[in-house]
Amino acid sequence: MSVNPNASIEVAAFKWVPDFARGLVRDLRVRWALEEAGLDYRVRLLGTPRPADYVKEQPFDQVPCFSDDQVRIFESGAIVQYIGEKSEALLPRETQAKYRAIQWTYAALNSVEPAILNVFAVTVFHADQEWAKLRRPGAEEFARLKLKRVSDWLGEKQWLEGDGFTIGDLVMVTVLRNLNHTGMVAEFPNLAAYQKRGEARPAFQRALSDQLAVFATNQPQAEPETAAA
Amino acid sequence: MSVNPNASIEVAAFKWVPDFARGLVRDLRVRWALEEAGLDYRVRLLGTPRPADYVKEQPFDQVPCFSDDQVRIFESGAIVQYIGEKSEALLPRETQAKYRAIQWTYAALNSVEPAILNVFAVTVFHADQEWAKLRRPGAEEFARLKLKRVSDWLGEKQWLEGDGFTIGDLVMVTVLRNLNHTGMVAEFPNLAAYQKRGEARPAFQRALSDQLAVFATNQPQAEPETAAA
Repeated sequence: MSVNPNASIEVAAFKWVPDFARGLVRDLRVRWALEEAGLDYRVRLLGTPRPADYVKEQPFDQVPCFSDDQVRIFESGAIVQYIGEKSEALLPRETQAKYRAIQWTYAALNSVEPAILNVFAVTVFHADQEWAKLRRPGAEEFARLKLKRVSDWLGEKQWLEGDGFTIGDLVMVTVLRNLNHTGMVAEFPNLAAYQKRGEARPAFQRALSDQLAVFATNQPQAEPETAAA
Repeated sequence: MSVNPNASIEVAAFKWVPDFARGLVRDLRVRWALEEAGLDYRVRLLGTPRPADYVKEQPFDQVPCFSDDQVRIFESGAIVQYIGEKSEALLPRETQAKYRAIQWTYAALNSVEPAILNVFAVTVFHADQEWAKLRRPGAEEFARLKLKRVSDWLGEKQWLEGDGFTIGDLVMVTVLRNLNHTGMVAEFPNLAAYQKRGEARPAFQRALSDQLAVFATNQPQAEPETAAA
């Protein structure tokens, strides 16, 4: 499936982001889920600043937003779960298996991602600040503990709950990608192999390539003086 | 409804936690949801350290865990959503309304809580460390922005999606409570009133009182010398 301007599903994404954010912006999760589910979607691109009334759709002024004939929602976790309800390839139907998958979606976003984004903060956003230099070892140690917990759980399994890929894996893999600029995931070989397994899925590859294509074609034109500065 | 040793629902909670964590431990969310849904539950209390094989149930070695006749799951967000599926008092049945509530559950846990827990980290856990002193203003400013986003969205509404209380409100209120030791929520009067409205619900009051009662009856006996030190 693919991006299709006539699709009834609409995903809001950013027109352009700096290099460090490419392949990490959260509409990637939604694009990936839609690709796995075999659903076409159109993209609504947002520039900077976003329209003033965009917060009426997305109160945190972020992406993605999602709409189709039935719902208009934000938060990548909720959107991915909603898409999962439409496709057994992402979310099993049996109650226990379904909630094990949903539990991992929440775990990725609440038990793992905050620790990883704190590493991102001290190594990228605030890297040159004194507090970030002092905090870096502790932030890395805490994130490493979370990685170890997931690695220990995963063991030799292919996916978090065994043989079947679910929304929990989809979100966890995108969370781990926020450490790509560090070597931290590689410290846990089974986890690094798991991330690679997720990223090797054709649906992920299409989603990533469609996200990156947008940035390539919307490169802001800098004023010559600014560009030279 | 209430704690009942013969209930089929089991919630894992901590036997004892220090003062600063009381009323904040995440089994509170599950207890509250069960009270709203009118479901009895029994509590399994865990000491420190947890049994070595507890990570096979809860890979992050945290609480809560939840089990009933159908599922065994962890992550408070997933558990609260599962309980919501059993009770229209927590989660509407119509697809759009249902996913608006689920979206707020994810938003509370992923768009708001990490910023608030970073304030908790610099004001409680690491308060005496140099990096935390340097980071505090920035951490507070970022959390304040998140509070403003929620406050702006809420406006004059009673709950996040209007007149009906949902799992999204339940989780958001418990997230805001992590700032109780600061005056930050009070800077946004409609948000402070919203938190108070949630905490005034009889189901919340029963859940809180049942959580606190456990800590009161399991106070560790300190050695006399240690107690005097």
